[in-house]
Amino acid sequence: MATASEKEALGYNLQVDYVVCYSFADVGRSHAVQQLEKLLRALSDAGLQTEVRQGDESSLLIFVRASKKRLKRAVYRSRVRDWLYGIRNAEPEPASAIEPQTEAERLRIINHMITLPSEEGGAGITPNHGEWEKVTAVFPLHDVETNSKWMREWSKKTFLSDDDLNQIRDKFGESVGFYFSFLQSYFRFLVFPAVFGFSCWFILGGYSVIYAIVNSLWCIIFVEYWKRQERDLSCRWQTKGVSAVQTNRREFKPEKEVRDESTGEMRGIFPATKRMQRQLLQIPFAFFAAVALGVIIATCFAIEIFISELYSGPFKSYLVFIPTILVSALVPTMSAVLMSIATRLNDYENHETNDGYDVALTQKVFVINFITSYLPVFLTAFVYVPFASRIVPYLDVFRLTVRPFVSKEHATAKRSHFQIDPARLRNQVIYFTVTAQIVGFAMETIVPYLKQGAFRKYKTFNKKRNGKSGEKKDQESPERTPIVSYDDPVEEKEFLARVRNEVELSEYEVTDDLREMCIQFGYLALFSPVWPLVPVSFFVNNWVELRSDFFKICKEFCRPTPLRADTIGPWLDTLGFLSWVGSITSAALIYMFSGNSQHGPNGEPTDIAGWALLLTIFFSEHLYLLVRYAVETGMSKIQPPFSRKERAERYLMRKRYLDSTLRVDADDDHDEDDTASISGPPEISRRTLEDDARQSSSQNTDPAERFWMRQRGWEESSQIGAGIIQSQSSEDGKKEQ
Amino acid sequence: MATASEKEALGYNLQVDYVVCYSFADVGRSHAVQQLEKLLRALSDAGLQTEVRQGDESSLLIFVRASKKRLKRAVYRSRVRDWLYGIRNAEPEPASAIEPQTEAERLRIINHMITLPSEEGGAGITPNHGEWEKVTAVFPLHDVETNSKWMREWSKKTFLSDDDLNQIRDKFGESVGFYFSFLQSYFRFLVFPAVFGFSCWFILGGYSVIYAIVNSLWCIIFVEYWKRQERDLSCRWQTKGVSAVQTNRREFKPEKEVRDESTGEMRGIFPATKRMQRQLLQIPFAFFAAVALGVIIATCFAIEIFISELYSGPFKSYLVFIPTILVSALVPTMSAVLMSIATRLNDYENHETNDGYDVALTQKVFVINFITSYLPVFLTAFVYVPFASRIVPYLDVFRLTVRPFVSKEHATAKRSHFQIDPARLRNQVIYFTVTAQIVGFAMETIVPYLKQGAFRKYKTFNKKRNGKSGEKKDQESPERTPIVSYDDPVEEKEFLARVRNEVELSEYEVTDDLREMCIQFGYLALFSPVWPLVPVSFFVNNWVELRSDFFKICKEFCRPTPLRADTIGPWLDTLGFLSWVGSITSAALIYMFSGNSQHGPNGEPTDIAGWALLLTIFFSEHLYLLVRYAVETGMSKIQPPFSRKERAERYLMRKRYLDSTLRVDADDDHDEDDTASISGPPEISRRTLEDDARQSSSQNTDPAERFWMRQRGWEESSQIGAGIIQSQSSEDGKKEQ
Repeated sequence: MATASEKEALGYNLQVDYVVCYSFADVGRSHAVQQLEKLLRALSDAGLQTEVRQGDESSLLIFVRASKKRLKRAVYRSRVRDWLYGIRNAEPEPASAIEPQTEAERLRIINHMITLPSEEGGAGITPNHGEWEKVTAVFPLHDVETNSKWMREWSKKTFLSDDDLNQIRDKFGESVGFYFSFLQSYFRFLVFPAVFGFSCWFILGGYSVIYAIVNSLWCIIFVEYWKRQERDLSCRWQTKGVSAVQTNRREFKPEKEVRDESTGEMRGIFPATKRMQRQLLQIPFAFFAAVALGVIIATCFAIEIFISELYSGPFKSYLVFIPTILVSALVPTMSAVLMSIATRLNDYENHETNDGYDVALTQKVFVINFITSYLPVFLTAFVYVPFASRIVPYLDVFRLTVRPFVSKEHATAKRSHFQIDPARLRNQVIYFTVTAQIVGFAMETIVPYLKQGAFRKYKTFNKKRNGKSGEKKDQESPERTPIVSYDDPVEEKEFLARVRNEVELSEYEVTDDLREMCIQFGYLALFSPVWPLVPVSFFVNNWVELRSDFFKICKEFCRPTPLRADTIGPWLDTLGFLSWVGSITSAALIYMFSGNSQHGPNGEPTDIAGWALLLTIFFSEHLYLLVRYAVETGMSKIQPPFSRKERAERYLMRKRYLDSTLRVDADDDHDEDDTASISGPPEISRRTLEDDARQSSSQNTDPAERFWMRQRGWEESSQIGAGIIQSQSSEDGKKEQ
Repeated sequence: MATASEKEALGYNLQVDYVVCYSFADVGRSHAVQQLEKLLRALSDAGLQTEVRQGDESSLLIFVRASKKRLKRAVYRSRVRDWLYGIRNAEPEPASAIEPQTEAERLRIINHMITLPSEEGGAGITPNHGEWEKVTAVFPLHDVETNSKWMREWSKKTFLSDDDLNQIRDKFGESVGFYFSFLQSYFRFLVFPAVFGFSCWFILGGYSVIYAIVNSLWCIIFVEYWKRQERDLSCRWQTKGVSAVQTNRREFKPEKEVRDESTGEMRGIFPATKRMQRQLLQIPFAFFAAVALGVIIATCFAIEIFISELYSGPFKSYLVFIPTILVSALVPTMSAVLMSIATRLNDYENHETNDGYDVALTQKVFVINFITSYLPVFLTAFVYVPFASRIVPYLDVFRLTVRPFVSKEHATAKRSHFQIDPARLRNQVIYFTVTAQIVGFAMETIVPYLKQGAFRKYKTFNKKRNGKSGEKKDQESPERTPIVSYDDPVEEKEFLARVRNEVELSEYEVTDDLREMCIQFGYLALFSPVWPLVPVSFFVNNWVELRSDFFKICKEFCRPTPLRADTIGPWLDTLGFLSWVGSITSAALIYMFSGNSQHGPNGEPTDIAGWALLLTIFFSEHLYLLVRYAVETGMSKIQPPFSRKERAERYLMRKRYLDSTLRVDADDDHDEDDTASISGPPEISRRTLEDDARQSSSQNTDPAERFWMRQRGWEESSQIGAGIIQSQSSEDGKKEQ
């Protein structure tokens, strides 16, 4: 049942379901025409109606709309598949009566119709790959009106309602829906630590044991809550178990083809052991990443300390920016290099399914992100603070680089004057949890938007210039004009202009946004005891984040093809892992920094009793694990509403079926009772006597039959039993006398 | 299809499927007769044939055999249920053609016929409970011949084959089958540490780092292997997912009855939160258990040290036995008390399902067992060895008790002479891993068997005496004799004597044997670096254990009703937990005891650097967790054969169904192609022109329709597209010129 808003949206987009972008640059003309024909025929064969318009100078826009009947059938097939895989409980209604339930389902199914191989009833279009390399994009169109309506509405709300989340899911599919639900849950959960953190900061200051414990507990509960919420959402959105249906990777290179014994099909095989051997490369990779990024970060860190705390020569106020500039330049560069290595490693691992590939890549990405995000704070907390007075003297090496410019006396502060900066750790945490978040928001949302605007203006300007230069040539070639103002029908002009803009947008990857949130959660779990206002900052940040991410999807990316999901995937494990590590770092931070200032560390390792620190960590970690186990067990007992509903449905379905077989049984029962001799009623004693006679002939052969013939029917058994009871009881009675 | 051996066995047991034992002691005669009649009628109504014989003085034996047709139907119903719950992949064949596949399935189904409530097609007999309180036992009969054949065969083998395990499962059901499979896997896995441990012991002696690492790794691999093996077995035995079908506990007391919204049935509800509150009592319980047992063990331990190492007065050679006697007397007593508390706590928790109850009880039992089994060694390793010289002087309190008897000079060795006994830890480990295992075997298998024999002799003797005294009274009451030699038909005498013996046996609980093995595994994981011959001892012990456990089931317990299982249940978690703790204790033991003797501890805590010890533990534990994660991930990638087969079957089933819907689609396709106008072939251009005309009238109203009408059919789109390409390309050509 298409909702009203859906109809509006489709009306707005002229009922275009998908836009296929076909590029004919760098191809021979005749070949391009041939390919186009093939493409259109394939689409048409799959039940899709097409309209062709011009894209930019070297591409065509093919607008695609699904025929109602074929769409219904595709929906039906998808539902049947879901039912067989146990994703849906109810057997689907017949194909003729079926309708896509949401816009997301509709778009997902049409995407299947376009991309699935023809054996499975699709057109087999694989964008940017193989035969269809020239199909550069397949994407649905944004519902501009609804999007801006939502943005307006949400900017006035603190929390999104379940309904809002359902709508996101209806428009963008479960995968995006899960991200926003996660963000929303996280945001709502932040209320408590924000309030509590603010109170702690106000009353107790930093490094409060109470805050650390509450924070750790909160992390456990949040992660477990989300696991449960995830299950519930997957029941609500009917995607439970959807991750079991894995799609094969196109890029998978089987080592050999093997005929599957049981299914009788040829199947590409790549031995798991071989893949595991390749995966072992992750270890040197992680090591290399840690060293490469660690060296950069540690060096910049050392330079910074040198300049800010030892150096007292000229230009100090300018020089302090050097390490920041170095970090900002080198770390992203190195990350990009490592990312490309990670991707190639991942390709080399040759995963069979897309899910497997994504999980493996996520792991590698997480390693890189973990180092770039948390290593600086780790260095300050666990290297600079305890060991500064030992290490700092070695920073004299930098003096060598300074010497050419400055006389020795000026260059460095006297060593005896050196004091660690106790606020450094706090400032660093503030930087990462406030400044960096704001910078990130700007870099991620505002800058690309401005760039986009500028780029469009530049393009128009360029076109105009071209057009002008074209106009000059106009006398020679009158066909020039279409490049500037395409030969569009007047009524479609606006629409096509919008589509052409959307074509240029890049594809949205929900995993990037999830990663950002997980890394943010990490700061909270790992370092928030340093500065209890961290959750307050995140609370504010995430209100903006949720809206800006939606804005980003609507404006800076082309509309994502709806994907189903029943989880936020590998990031969930990441959350658990970070909260675990948090139990270690929190304990260490509290032990090292809390208490009175004399007790606090001053750069001398001897001030900290190693065994006590380690014992604190040991207890904290195991207490954490114990509590987590308890919370896990507890949470698993309480069933969320939709899971309960889902279970009840499944139960009902089974019960109906069982009842029907039982009824058949009961019918049988009556049949049998008439003929069988088990509970032989006295009336048919004649027949049993006959049986007796028949069986007595074979009596001597089978002792078992003889045994079972002694008492015929339960009444006889009962009489014999009663006899025994009577005799025994009477004896007892006698004995008692 | 009944196997040959099955038929033999049933022939041997006179085709008796089950024996129901009905006691009429302490009941009025008429009531007893009434109840018996009701019982027999219920059995008969459920499709079971009955024969009544005398049991002992106050009980009847009711022999039960299932009618073929009703059994078939019950099997069918059970298969349908399995299919609905996803335990079986293939839809079951019709009821008429169905046969129980194994003796275990047959017995399980017949047990269902006896015990299930009548709504579900059973007789509703609940032994020892409610209305059927006087039904004291329902059990199948042992297949004596096959049992002794197997015992003979296995005593000549080192390893049981898969076939042997399948046979155990066929006879005793999956639950017992899983235990023997586990024991067999464990036994086979012990080969490696036994050989390696022996080599290490020979070459490196105790406390070898290499041994500890290999041992820890072995533990990880074994636990993960068993998890995988378990899944594979459950596929092989078709019980995968069987634990999802949970049976409700009879003893469950619902707090309130609630009408289930979705199913419309009344359902007893007990709020999970309330149960969780009750479960919190586990914490004080565990604490109390630790203190109670800890005090006993520590006191005896202290007495032992006092006597063996400080005391030098008279009777020393006798006094050293005092602590052993105390421990042997007090610990089991306290354990029994704690067990009864645990059971009552568990009852109080009011679990809804049997599985939930068992899991919760297992946890509590494990706590008790953990303390009684490992605390003594912990005390020696982590209290006695590092702190002895601090603590031992306080043992002077015992001198007070000694003083009355002995002069002060004799009583204790000089304190300066005190030296910890470095071999104490090793001796203790040897005691627990060799002596205690042998004692356990004797207590568990040999003693009960001898007791049984003695008890039977005593009974016969008693009867004879009674008989004699009866004979004396014989003149007065001639009915006395039946008590001695029951009034059995001659040909059944032997059989009934055997049955009467079996009635007296107690019920077998597979969980006790599993617990024993898990505790044994614990010694290996936790303490084997102390004495690397531990696995050798266990290897020998478990060869005997497997046979003796089978002997025990056959001789000392009545035949267990076959239960299905797809796992060894909560003990699996226990194994994982013990192997985890092992990574901590191993590291600590190695750090404290390895290296040269000067470095070794001598009872002074200062000898051990706390931070280094803790750091060792920290690294060892996290390395353990990392390796475990890697092994887990790795193992999960390699599919065992039966899992693969199961998956393939499931896949095939789905494919068949999907293919059939796709075929329907394809048929539809042809229908549609004739009428639809999507890929309108040129032939029907007349009709399309008509459509044109019809639609042009409404052209002005809907911009979307106007949009989609521009190109009709993919051929038109193709032409337009080709036109655009041509024009663009020609322009490009011109530009290039």
